[in-house]
Amino acid sequence: MRQRLMDATVELLVEKGFGGTTTTLVSERAGVSRGAQLHHFPTKNDLVVAAVSHLTAIRGSDLEAAVARLPRGEGRTEAVVQMLGDHFASDVFTAALELWVAARTDEHLHEAVAPLEQHLGRETHRLTVELLGIDEGRPGTRELVQATLDLVRGLGLANTLGDDARRRRRILTEWARTLDAALRNPQGDDA
Amino acid sequence: MRQRLMDATVELLVEKGFGGTTTTLVSERAGVSRGAQLHHFPTKNDLVVAAVSHLTAIRGSDLEAAVARLPRGEGRTEAVVQMLGDHFASDVFTAALELWVAARTDEHLHEAVAPLEQHLGRETHRLTVELLGIDEGRPGTRELVQATLDLVRGLGLANTLGDDARRRRRILTEWARTLDAALRNPQGDDA
Repeated sequence: MRQRLMDATVELLVEKGFGGTTTTLVSERAGVSRGAQLHHFPTKNDLVVAAVSHLTAIRGSDLEAAVARLPRGEGRTEAVVQMLGDHFASDVFTAALELWVAARTDEHLHEAVAPLEQHLGRETHRLTVELLGIDEGRPGTRELVQATLDLVRGLGLANTLGDDARRRRRILTEWARTLDAALRNPQGDDA
Repeated sequence: MRQRLMDATVELLVEKGFGGTTTTLVSERAGVSRGAQLHHFPTKNDLVVAAVSHLTAIRGSDLEAAVARLPRGEGRTEAVVQMLGDHFASDVFTAALELWVAARTDEHLHEAVAPLEQHLGRETHRLTVELLGIDEGRPGTRELVQATLDLVRGLGLANTLGDDARRRRRILTEWARTLDAALRNPQGDDA
């Protein structure tokens, strides 16, 4: 039942936005009684934060598993970067975006969303460093990982307004090539 | 009067979000009568799209003027990239973000916002190419400019959720260094 509520909440955030997502619509969509829903999630904020948190964790695990199966060596950086791009163009990102933007002007929601966002940010960073197999001790490397994640976040935002996957892939192919070159020639060595 | 309405609308989008911005609040904040406001902007959508369009154009011109005064040569790429970062961390970006996200689930608003977004995207791209003084005919160059703009968009989004300017500057310093190296060694030549 919890899973159905989580799925229905994310679906509604994507379809109707934060403002259009009501607890009544979620219980109808999930086929769960209002009483049972309120027992698990007393408020709309409880529900939306739990849903985005839950589904992002699941997608993160999916991503990790998928990338772990990729071969090492040539092409790995691009594969990792493209997968991050797909991850940030998913419905879960769109649902999270609705939450972030609503939280900007809603103090209570902000209190719940900010720790979730920080946790996810750290986890995604850690995962990216691990997947790329890079040494963050080298000057500039940490910033390049952060830039990669802010880039896919920006592409994810563009995607919600009708951008296309072909453009995203082309940009990420070039970024992967650039990132590889930069990681081979750390700060100061490229002059 | 138009200017006061535009300023008040962007202020309210930043403070209260799209949902909390009403035409009544805008006319009060601007000190403009309801009748006069409705004469110029019959609907909320007319008002918010005009305001974000107007203020983005002004900020774009400010940006262009500021960067045109920068010296050529060493440090120019970083100066351009940092200015783009500041531009996308401004209140006008936050107001535009409110519009984009609302437009995602509002068909009428989408019809008005999509052409504005496309126009701004093209203009910002053109400006960036011009400021960096680069040749887009070289393979991979166009994608690196797009990546730069998607990166600052991602950083702008992070900024709305309490990110800090110091992190942004550090990332963009490294990005500028990487971009300079990539532009010196176009696609294929970096192996």
